[in-house]
Amino acid sequence: MSKVSINNNEHNFDEHNYDVHNCPQTQAAIRNFGQGQTPPEFIQALAEVKEAALRALQDTERPWPEPVFDSVCQVLGDIRAGKLDHRFPLNLAQGGAGTSLHMNICEVLADEVGQRLGRTDLFHFLDDGARSQSTNDVVSTAAIIVIFRRLQSLERAVIDLQEALVAREQAWRGITIMGRTECQDALPMDLSQVASAWAGSAERDRWRLGKLKERIRTIPLGGTATGTGHGASPVYLFSAEQHLRRLTGLPLQRSQNLTDAVAQRDDFAEVANGFALVGTNLIKICRDLMFYTSTVVGELEHPALQWGSTAMPVKTNPVLLEYAMGLAIRAQHRAASIVHYTEEGFLQLNAFTPFMVDAFIDAGTDLERALTALSRDLLPALQVHPDRCLENMLQSRALLNLLRKDLPYEKLKSLAAHWQCGISGTKAGAQEQVHQYIDELSRLTGLDPSVLMERLAFLLAPCPGYPELQSELQAMAPQDH
Amino acid sequence: MSKVSINNNEHNFDEHNYDVHNCPQTQAAIRNFGQGQTPPEFIQALAEVKEAALRALQDTERPWPEPVFDSVCQVLGDIRAGKLDHRFPLNLAQGGAGTSLHMNICEVLADEVGQRLGRTDLFHFLDDGARSQSTNDVVSTAAIIVIFRRLQSLERAVIDLQEALVAREQAWRGITIMGRTECQDALPMDLSQVASAWAGSAERDRWRLGKLKERIRTIPLGGTATGTGHGASPVYLFSAEQHLRRLTGLPLQRSQNLTDAVAQRDDFAEVANGFALVGTNLIKICRDLMFYTSTVVGELEHPALQWGSTAMPVKTNPVLLEYAMGLAIRAQHRAASIVHYTEEGFLQLNAFTPFMVDAFIDAGTDLERALTALSRDLLPALQVHPDRCLENMLQSRALLNLLRKDLPYEKLKSLAAHWQCGISGTKAGAQEQVHQYIDELSRLTGLDPSVLMERLAFLLAPCPGYPELQSELQAMAPQDH
Amino acid sequence: MSKVSINNNEHNFDEHNYDVHNCPQTQAAIRNFGQGQTPPEFIQALAEVKEAALRALQDTERPWPEPVFDSVCQVLGDIRAGKLDHRFPLNLAQGGAGTSLHMNICEVLADEVGQRLGRTDLFHFLDDGARSQSTNDVVSTAAIIVIFRRLQSLERAVIDLQEALVAREQAWRGITIMGRTECQDALPMDLSQVASAWAGSAERDRWRLGKLKERIRTIPLGGTATGTGHGASPVYLFSAEQHLRRLTGLPLQRSQNLTDAVAQRDDFAEVANGFALVGTNLIKICRDLMFYTSTVVGELEHPALQWGSTAMPVKTNPVLLEYAMGLAIRAQHRAASIVHYTEEGFLQLNAFTPFMVDAFIDAGTDLERALTALSRDLLPALQVHPDRCLENMLQSRALLNLLRKDLPYEKLKSLAAHWQCGISGTKAGAQEQVHQYIDELSRLTGLDPSVLMERLAFLLAPCPGYPELQSELQAMAPQDH
Amino acid sequence: MSKVSINNNEHNFDEHNYDVHNCPQTQAAIRNFGQGQTPPEFIQALAEVKEAALRALQDTERPWPEPVFDSVCQVLGDIRAGKLDHRFPLNLAQGGAGTSLHMNICEVLADEVGQRLGRTDLFHFLDDGARSQSTNDVVSTAAIIVIFRRLQSLERAVIDLQEALVAREQAWRGITIMGRTECQDALPMDLSQVASAWAGSAERDRWRLGKLKERIRTIPLGGTATGTGHGASPVYLFSAEQHLRRLTGLPLQRSQNLTDAVAQRDDFAEVANGFALVGTNLIKICRDLMFYTSTVVGELEHPALQWGSTAMPVKTNPVLLEYAMGLAIRAQHRAASIVHYTEEGFLQLNAFTPFMVDAFIDAGTDLERALTALSRDLLPALQVHPDRCLENMLQSRALLNLLRKDLPYEKLKSLAAHWQCGISGTKAGAQEQVHQYIDELSRLTGLDPSVLMERLAFLLAPCPGYPELQSELQAMAPQDH
Repeated sequence: MSKVSINNNEHNFDEHNYDVHNCPQTQAAIRNFGQGQTPPEFIQALAEVKEAALRALQDTERPWPEPVFDSVCQVLGDIRAGKLDHRFPLNLAQGGAGTSLHMNICEVLADEVGQRLGRTDLFHFLDDGARSQSTNDVVSTAAIIVIFRRLQSLERAVIDLQEALVAREQAWRGITIMGRTECQDALPMDLSQVASAWAGSAERDRWRLGKLKERIRTIPLGGTATGTGHGASPVYLFSAEQHLRRLTGLPLQRSQNLTDAVAQRDDFAEVANGFALVGTNLIKICRDLMFYTSTVVGELEHPALQWGSTAMPVKTNPVLLEYAMGLAIRAQHRAASIVHYTEEGFLQLNAFTPFMVDAFIDAGTDLERALTALSRDLLPALQVHPDRCLENMLQSRALLNLLRKDLPYEKLKSLAAHWQCGISGTKAGAQEQVHQYIDELSRLTGLDPSVLMERLAFLLAPCPGYPELQSELQAMAPQDH
Repeated sequence: MSKVSINNNEHNFDEHNYDVHNCPQTQAAIRNFGQGQTPPEFIQALAEVKEAALRALQDTERPWPEPVFDSVCQVLGDIRAGKLDHRFPLNLAQGGAGTSLHMNICEVLADEVGQRLGRTDLFHFLDDGARSQSTNDVVSTAAIIVIFRRLQSLERAVIDLQEALVAREQAWRGITIMGRTECQDALPMDLSQVASAWAGSAERDRWRLGKLKERIRTIPLGGTATGTGHGASPVYLFSAEQHLRRLTGLPLQRSQNLTDAVAQRDDFAEVANGFALVGTNLIKICRDLMFYTSTVVGELEHPALQWGSTAMPVKTNPVLLEYAMGLAIRAQHRAASIVHYTEEGFLQLNAFTPFMVDAFIDAGTDLERALTALSRDLLPALQVHPDRCLENMLQSRALLNLLRKDLPYEKLKSLAAHWQCGISGTKAGAQEQVHQYIDELSRLTGLDPSVLMERLAFLLAPCPGYPELQSELQAMAPQDH
Repeated sequence: MSKVSINNNEHNFDEHNYDVHNCPQTQAAIRNFGQGQTPPEFIQALAEVKEAALRALQDTERPWPEPVFDSVCQVLGDIRAGKLDHRFPLNLAQGGAGTSLHMNICEVLADEVGQRLGRTDLFHFLDDGARSQSTNDVVSTAAIIVIFRRLQSLERAVIDLQEALVAREQAWRGITIMGRTECQDALPMDLSQVASAWAGSAERDRWRLGKLKERIRTIPLGGTATGTGHGASPVYLFSAEQHLRRLTGLPLQRSQNLTDAVAQRDDFAEVANGFALVGTNLIKICRDLMFYTSTVVGELEHPALQWGSTAMPVKTNPVLLEYAMGLAIRAQHRAASIVHYTEEGFLQLNAFTPFMVDAFIDAGTDLERALTALSRDLLPALQVHPDRCLENMLQSRALLNLLRKDLPYEKLKSLAAHWQCGISGTKAGAQEQVHQYIDELSRLTGLDPSVLMERLAFLLAPCPGYPELQSELQAMAPQDH
Repeated sequence: MSKVSINNNEHNFDEHNYDVHNCPQTQAAIRNFGQGQTPPEFIQALAEVKEAALRALQDTERPWPEPVFDSVCQVLGDIRAGKLDHRFPLNLAQGGAGTSLHMNICEVLADEVGQRLGRTDLFHFLDDGARSQSTNDVVSTAAIIVIFRRLQSLERAVIDLQEALVAREQAWRGITIMGRTECQDALPMDLSQVASAWAGSAERDRWRLGKLKERIRTIPLGGTATGTGHGASPVYLFSAEQHLRRLTGLPLQRSQNLTDAVAQRDDFAEVANGFALVGTNLIKICRDLMFYTSTVVGELEHPALQWGSTAMPVKTNPVLLEYAMGLAIRAQHRAASIVHYTEEGFLQLNAFTPFMVDAFIDAGTDLERALTALSRDLLPALQVHPDRCLENMLQSRALLNLLRKDLPYEKLKSLAAHWQCGISGTKAGAQEQVHQYIDELSRLTGLDPSVLMERLAFLLAPCPGYPELQSELQAMAPQDH
């Protein structure tokens, strides 16, 4: 195994594999910010932007002979395909607003073109490679591409969660559970409604992420260094935008206010908040499930995916819930850093764009893992214990709340104070017991048993979802667990 | 003056003015959470919800004789008009998910109806006043109404900022200023573009807040305690929604997933994030203005609204910028608490809705004040010093960056290293000086003076905005300052 | 002056009661930042600083005739005693680093001295009142005094919590409860250990707050505007420090690095973090109690302080737990704003000191209320249900974890899989049942009943704490609830 | 096992290099949480804890024949030395409170002992390897070791910063600069005082981190699963603590309240806040330096470490300041996640300890890099421009503030309003010019030139620090830049 460096939250490639020949600015950046690895998705996006820009220049100003331009496009194609990742040794955590990332791709482009053509004087890394462009429009545009795609994949993961929850909703129909507010028993409800409420938040996340794509698609390409478009011609701008849409397949759109688009990043902050909310909703679901699957509540049961404890053989822990929560929290704070970076924009530029992309990649990865842990590994493997749901209800005085239409509030309140039912505990599962329960309740309330039977019908209902659930569970259970 | 209690972040009314007669649950809440004052805007919203609910019941179930119902509506009308604020002594900071707020209005309603009809047995505060309703749908719906209106007024304040910035943009046309990225001189730009970039973020805030109204208009009314709608009939639900839309004038819409709408508050978190971003964008503008109006930069000048220092007579501080920033930061953290409360939703309810409304009111108030400080008091009174803008440019080597199309990158870089112009300082203001500058530059670069003159034409341009600006400033200056 | 609108998160005094005669700078500040009320504790601290400074000047430079100086001291005495609060109409939320607060006290001082002496030319509000002083050292020093005292009172409230928890620890000795990790039953423990763990975090908070007093006692007094001490003599500095210690009774100490002490506020941030952690620990305790007092767990029971619901008569909510959590969260975010303001220090000053004090007062108030809600109102009124503790244990397979010394891990794991005990439920309370339980367990494990009896002795132990607890509870219960 | 996808914010080792033979629980964890690499520093700490525990057991209970125990110690020695890192394929981001990490080391230990002894029945991974231990005390103790060492190395990095700042303080003596508050010119000061203020915050960070070591040294070892010490004998506890102190060289101390020490992690939160404040102070210094080194201010100059822009040849950006700020912000939010995880402690355990360690390692790494960027790379290479400092002062009316002892406040204020000096600009550097300035000032104020000369003596002082500074800079400049 290779030696492990200190470098623990970045890629850890073997430095001897890197090729920084003829890349003096890249080497300077390594001296300043250390060596790492640019995330492949960012390299790809950057190459797409460069290709769009250079193609637009060739279309409109034709600065390069065809063989040179062909070679340029070939190299950019190789970069986009991930073939030259070993030439991008910089982390996104860097000063200079991404200038080093831009220098890196310009240096690699010029060097590769030089090598392939056998002459180094045909394509200067900046005079040619950065013609009509600036880090401030190029890197920001690449950032937007990465974030847009992260939004898309996060949206897919949220859809998976929503579908997994809807599957639970369908499977859980007909199982009655005590509804609880403020941790106190309130009123019975269908277990499917619990799943439906969770699915509601996933639905909202999905819609929110979908809408955020509209916010993040506005690119500053063509604004060059300060958004004034200095050095870029209008026809170039138009063409570059077209090329980029085609190359990326994304509905990108040039900003109508380029000085704004270069200087301000509140669109990133808004997307980051959308990411963080996915975490918030996930944590809510996890906390609920921690409660339902707790030993003492026992209405749901999480799968036994690994031994729970080195000390206690009788322990199955909600490891996926904790994993998802831990990741969600990590992602929330990575996302919060994006809002912080947004606030550090100053004068004509926000210099922290690379740090923001870094945080988006981390947060997106964490959230997707957390979502997958729930939707693929946990939810289909959850077991319901309808008998425990029933037992917990029968032990609760809160069933009296169902009689609100039959008796005045204050009457019910005083009856409840004298009813021992909820305290004494009841053996669950048998029809006989429910009948005895209803008789007791009739004596307590003076209501006719038939009225009570109507209000509490669910106590005697078969749990239609249950048998299906079991067979469905067997079918869906991951084979390797 | 009345004695000041410790109670510094709440309303501070004289407790002897309160009337909590026949309100035992309200009194219990005072014992538990202390005495304060419910914000009038929340009282109004709560009364609107109650009126919608009771009217819907009367429409559909007709539980009350007309005289009783007339009296009920009269009392609710008085509450809505703010005539009974002294009967609402509870702060929003309270446990119980707002049950005490709901109890309070039910108690006041029953007591007032009892007094007006001369009989207390015709309208029971809960059996009648809370019929088919629960705190969990009623208080949440009132919360949404308050937040929706706060969104509207924040949006208006953002529009005012945008308009003030657009006015600056128009007034500043033709004034050239050095554009700066990463605090370093980059390329000259028009000062109007600086204002335009700021206006861009205000435009985005405006659009964002506008869109958020779509997210927050979904109400849980009819869901009752756990979102199952227990105790509420479908016709009632339909009618209550209609009445509420009419009474509030807001495009409210009943949730199609009521268990979700009662249990989860990520819509509040999303709106809170929108509020916080207004602060983020405001802080960015303030920081820029702090720089431009700093003595050493001096390109802009803030008005002298008060003496700057007790120790230093020659000091005019950017007090409104600091005021706006301080408020924005306070608002951001109040908004962040809303996201935190969202995460504390548990099982079938989020019990922190009243705390969230409290935070929205605080954050909204702070942001509106901050926005107004900028748009009404600061921006129209900002002075530009075009001569200082010019002087700062002439002292800067960065003007060489304008020659990028004329000379190769590396050539310009080496020329710049030998050019003393930027260091030596130049007396600004005179045409003669600019010509001398261009001559020096021609010697340095070998470029023809006419080419340089074209690139640097703005140095000799009259500042067309300037005289107009002055007269406009005089016209716009607040008379009372 | 324009009409001041309702400002709902500040004091709300009748503006007609204010006396801002002869206070033009105070009036300017009202125009800029709105009208409110300076918190009395800040007015007092400011007057203490002023008195220390002026006494030191009189000691060392004797600038004023005795009658003038006597009058000055008299007025400051009145301010300190709260007699002139109506002359301080400014909120702490203001720009200008507190200059307006300093102007306000200087103006009031000069005006009152002028009135009392019948001549206004003997004491100039700045040349005399601010002699050798600057807002930047005076207001910061007053801020430190307020924060120090807030630390002290928060510490007292934490001590009360610790004592209330230790009282629970003592009362709960001998009651066995299932210990749970990750929401899963783990190993039984004494209920007193649960309280002891909570008390441990309060103990740590207490120690932490105690230590923080050492961090916050360093004052910049004498540094004047930029920490260079311009305009202040060394003997004055020494004397002012002495006077201030005497006047406040606090162990304040002049900074040895005054430019640092004026410019940087990370000491405030550190204290703010200490405040926030009190909230964090409080939330942990509240969440545990929410679980223990939930209907379904039922091992503890919170007092019925108010009716729980308008819709559900059978509902007693954990209103104090929610109140405490809600306040703690609000305080955490107010505290976080202090850290944010700290980061906004720039060059030779942090201009946000008044906003920080504002946040400290809010956060301190909220936390003290939250702590009191637990220590005074909730904890002494908590009831234990030892029978439910026992019942929950007997239903749990996790009791097998107690046999870890008797049987290998993997053997226990496989036994547990076949033991129905935990699922089937057991009627609790009777010795007979425990014996039956042990017999079953003996059959399952092959261990001798006497060994099992030893391991599970607590199941048969009388609950010694229980009867005492009951009588103690009756004694401690608040009479007015 | 299913294919492990690219995981981009964790170590990225080749999975084929891992050896998870005979580690079924480790394999289960990979299935649940993905494959990665445990940070070597955590593996080492975990092995130290295991060795201390097993040695203590052998001392007190002698459960293993000497040859077995020797082999155990040999394997643990190899793990501690990093020789078996390839057997630890789990990231710290995991559910289960670190049970999988504990399982992993137990499995590796048993497997390696089995291999070395040629028999697998002599040492069972749990019955032997986890004897008297639980994940909850073992992993938490290892976490504390890692955090303690991170505190130590962060403290060293802070000391380096402090020393670099003190070196600037010494080098900058005698250079006068305009002191500025609220971005406005205030009073001149010595540039060394600016450095001294910065050094003050570093000094405080150093002291703070030093003190935090006292907070974090309390370990829960011996508390086992729930802090009750079930399964651990008192003599074992005592011995394990002794062994661990010896093995780690750290002043660790067993908690006197083990249920607290297992359940609550506010000590981690406190340390995390200490980490974050290092970032806060760093950001303040960076922001100041961004201002001083901005082109327009120009009083300091940052080194040209790399080309500043792909578009603008004349641009040298403050890349190290941005790098340090970006890292500091990232670290602050990682640290904030630790506080968040702290709040997620529940009942008898905080299950998020591994996530917290993960965040500590990230935040510590980022902060150390940021500190080093300043102390090693930036500060020694900063250049001062005393002529620019002087020029900026001579252009500022704020020099009038120096005459506060000579003229009344209001007189100075009105004089300043008529003084054009500050606006007109002054060519700096020559004595002649200063004399002319003083003459003008004398005319304006009516003060004698000799008095003015005394107040403004620094204007004519040679800049003693300057020549030394230059030579020192040459000596200290990094050779490779």
